[in-house]
Amino acid sequence: MNRIQKVVDEWVSQPQHKVKYFPPFELCAQLSEEIGEVAREVAHLYGYKKKKEGEKTDGLEGEIGDVLFVLACLANSQGIDLDEAFNKSVEKKNQRDKHRFE
Amino acid sequence: MNRIQKVVDEWVSQPQHKVKYFPPFELCAQLSEEIGEVAREVAHLYGYKKKKEGEKTDGLEGEIGDVLFVLACLANSQGIDLDEAFNKSVEKKNQRDKHRFE
Amino acid sequence: MNRIQKVVDEWVSQPQHKVKYFPPFELCAQLSEEIGEVAREVAHLYGYKKKKEGEKTDGLEGEIGDVLFVLACLANSQGIDLDEAFNKSVEKKNQRDKHRFE
Amino acid sequence: MNRIQKVVDEWVSQPQHKVKYFPPFELCAQLSEEIGEVAREVAHLYGYKKKKEGEKTDGLEGEIGDVLFVLACLANSQGIDLDEAFNKSVEKKNQRDKHRFE
Repeated sequence: MNRIQKVVDEWVSQPQHKVKYFPPFELCAQLSEEIGEVAREVAHLYGYKKKKEGEKTDGLEGEIGDVLFVLACLANSQGIDLDEAFNKSVEKKNQRDKHRFE
Repeated sequence: MNRIQKVVDEWVSQPQHKVKYFPPFELCAQLSEEIGEVAREVAHLYGYKKKKEGEKTDGLEGEIGDVLFVLACLANSQGIDLDEAFNKSVEKKNQRDKHRFE
Repeated sequence: MNRIQKVVDEWVSQPQHKVKYFPPFELCAQLSEEIGEVAREVAHLYGYKKKKEGEKTDGLEGEIGDVLFVLACLANSQGIDLDEAFNKSVEKKNQRDKHRFE
Repeated sequence: MNRIQKVVDEWVSQPQHKVKYFPPFELCAQLSEEIGEVAREVAHLYGYKKKKEGEKTDGLEGEIGDVLFVLACLANSQGIDLDEAFNKSVEKKNQRDKHRFE
């Protein structure tokens, strides 16, 4: 995952950006926005709701990529390693499920 | 990113799991839940709202890891490569910003 | 709040709609989408992120209205009264805060 | 809806609260958290995912009430009338659907 975090860090470091990383609450708002776009794509693919005519979207792949981008911004700005964060999540699930299926 | 998608695929393939991947709308609901927990952690770290007494949380790192886990579930179940999705997001940003800063 | 739930029920009952209420997971996806649009409006009003050129939005008021609409759909489809749900939330806060400020 | 907005305004005006309304990005984070709890309840009711043992929840009704509470906080803090916001959303849907079903 290091690659993603490095690409994001280089991207936000470009001179035209006023700030490197947005404040954490603003990144949360962006996460909420991007997750909403993932949900919209899923609804278009699997739900009753049709796309509005002329509505352009990046497709589910693009929206998932946007979530990753913002997630990496939040992680970078907070000094969090995405690989370690993921490992922690898996360990927690293994620990929890050990008890659940005993 | 391949590693994360592989770990998730092995994890959901364990015999005690009734289904490998949940249906896409249910994964969206999980994403919404996990993003909400990220938002709660950010609020505890940077906001006015204090933790409820005795409230256990996994910290921001763990919650970010959980988002990654569910995002990888959604990607795997839809045949999406997270690395390519991320690249697409960066390309789109580069394309868009090219016009914005001209 | 009864008014809102009635208006929504009449609206979804129109003959051109294939289904009255979407399934609960699809309504969750819509909620996620609408909350994301609220977050985007807040970011445009208070954040660093500028609107994309030509991006049309309904403003924060409209987006908050959309959340209410979908929330009423979910409540109606589950037989939940929004007024009672709100009262329950206030009571819970009062109960919880009683202990917090002792 | 006036009642809900008034109740919320009285509630946040209590002397023990350090601030009346949280800043808009923090309210967005709370909205994200509450919507996530709605999604979790829907998953418990309709999905594959079981509750963790000992997990206390307020049920879907309570979580919907919490969304309403935070939505009213955001609306109040921004001078938005929830009834008017809802009306605007319905009008927009009517306008949009007029073209869709012609």
